[in-house]
Amino acid sequence: MLFHGLSAFPITPADAHGRVHTGALSSLLTRIDKAGADSIGLLGSTGSYMYLSREEKRRAIETAAGCLAGRTPVIVGIGALRTDEAVTLAQDARDAGAQGLLLAPVSYTPLGDDEVFEHFAAVATATELPLCVYNNPGTTHFSISNALLTRLAAVPSIVAVKNPALPAADIGAAHQATLAAVPADFAVGYSGDWLVTDAILSGGVAWYSVIAGILPEPSIKLMRAAQAGDRAEVQRINALFEPLWTLFRELSSYRVVHAVANLLELSRFAPPRPILLLSPADRQRVKAALEILSSV
Amino acid sequence: MLFHGLSAFPITPADAHGRVHTGALSSLLTRIDKAGADSIGLLGSTGSYMYLSREEKRRAIETAAGCLAGRTPVIVGIGALRTDEAVTLAQDARDAGAQGLLLAPVSYTPLGDDEVFEHFAAVATATELPLCVYNNPGTTHFSISNALLTRLAAVPSIVAVKNPALPAADIGAAHQATLAAVPADFAVGYSGDWLVTDAILSGGVAWYSVIAGILPEPSIKLMRAAQAGDRAEVQRINALFEPLWTLFRELSSYRVVHAVANLLELSRFAPPRPILLLSPADRQRVKAALEILSSV
Repeated sequence: MLFHGLSAFPITPADAHGRVHTGALSSLLTRIDKAGADSIGLLGSTGSYMYLSREEKRRAIETAAGCLAGRTPVIVGIGALRTDEAVTLAQDARDAGAQGLLLAPVSYTPLGDDEVFEHFAAVATATELPLCVYNNPGTTHFSISNALLTRLAAVPSIVAVKNPALPAADIGAAHQATLAAVPADFAVGYSGDWLVTDAILSGGVAWYSVIAGILPEPSIKLMRAAQAGDRAEVQRINALFEPLWTLFRELSSYRVVHAVANLLELSRFAPPRPILLLSPADRQRVKAALEILSSV
Repeated sequence: MLFHGLSAFPITPADAHGRVHTGALSSLLTRIDKAGADSIGLLGSTGSYMYLSREEKRRAIETAAGCLAGRTPVIVGIGALRTDEAVTLAQDARDAGAQGLLLAPVSYTPLGDDEVFEHFAAVATATELPLCVYNNPGTTHFSISNALLTRLAAVPSIVAVKNPALPAADIGAAHQATLAAVPADFAVGYSGDWLVTDAILSGGVAWYSVIAGILPEPSIKLMRAAQAGDRAEVQRINALFEPLWTLFRELSSYRVVHAVANLLELSRFAPPRPILLLSPADRQRVKAALEILSSV
């Protein structure tokens, strides 16, 4: 059940040279663990995996293994442009104490389905850890079709997918089409915080959550309401999240949660350049959105 | 005049671990130099810059500096996801003997104009080498608008742009719009081999050429005809290139020139995985396209 429930994706606090601050990372991880998330998604897109060196990623995983001591399982992002690099990152993650892997088909030269399949097969067989397919066309510019997912799901250690959530009108049919493409025990979960509750209400088994990485408590309340099918409570909590969802859509969740971490004094670090800090006006909007959320 | 004329972009032959084969690279560079290209675009997209480590990129540049001894100037691709990495690559390129730099706004988190501007300004001021803006939305997923180009062209060492060529019906107006956005001495050149002669006939001053990296002789004939405004000769030579252009469009120039290098026994290496070798049937088509070209 590793790829079920609420998976919280923290930022990875790091200095301007890409050196991870293990103290700040530990605080974020402890906060998620105490709040009761079902898993932690370390080194996801939110965790800057594409901007950190192999050595720093390994330090981040070792930090998580040390401070969590197995209480909350850790799923580690291991995407890389080269297949051999992704294989090495998978082995590093296993050696440093990860419980599961998350692999996105990052690309520079646009890839074909056969190339993505061979890439995933090589990485999935490099360790015995269960692997979740990270389908994130917004950053990888490769969309994993249901036909390709069927092929990937036949690789023994590939047991889950993290799909982008869709608007309420489309998610039900899309979820059924995905279920039809994979074995019965394959875990179909979703990301896209501002759309995800409809995906859970439609049967999605996991929320891969950016906001839960920095605000785990209200996120867990929202997820538990969605898992219970309590649409009224989902609607009530989502309304309180809405100012933050607006900022996520407009400025990207990545930039916004870095600003939240600064505002809450959980990290004094900026995202890696070229990503810029939010403007003072936008930081003010983030602050206002956080105040509304305090009543969840 | 570094960013004028025909710039030939070779592949970077490397083994399965990403180790550059300096002997095969030297042979490719010598072949381009002897044929009389105006510059060499080392570590472009064709040269696998996003798939090679800092150390291997440095070895490739030192190899070029050694075997060319300044005869044909070398423009080096220095794109990286992190700004500090791109700065370091620019300094490495200068120290290893490059004459110019080529910088693409590679991204994972989608970037805004201000972020790309600050990224370019930081890299351009890190050395005194002239820098060409590499506008390649097909791989970077960021399109450099003319408004952003105006801001970039105000940075002293940014002196050129490599834009994607457009179909004949559109390139004239697009070229004039770009010229209107930049100073008079700013060099506006193009890539996209199968479309580029119309861009040169419309006033583009440079062809950043994938095919010239592996077949410099017929490419130089085509460029000289375009530079002379000899439309009949351009048409005659382009007709002979057409079977290869068809393969470029269908399979990508990156995959096809790696196959050409294998067929001509100029490199025994494959592109970096996850990129796969062409199928035997497609390699046969490449072979047939090369035979037609032998009559240029």
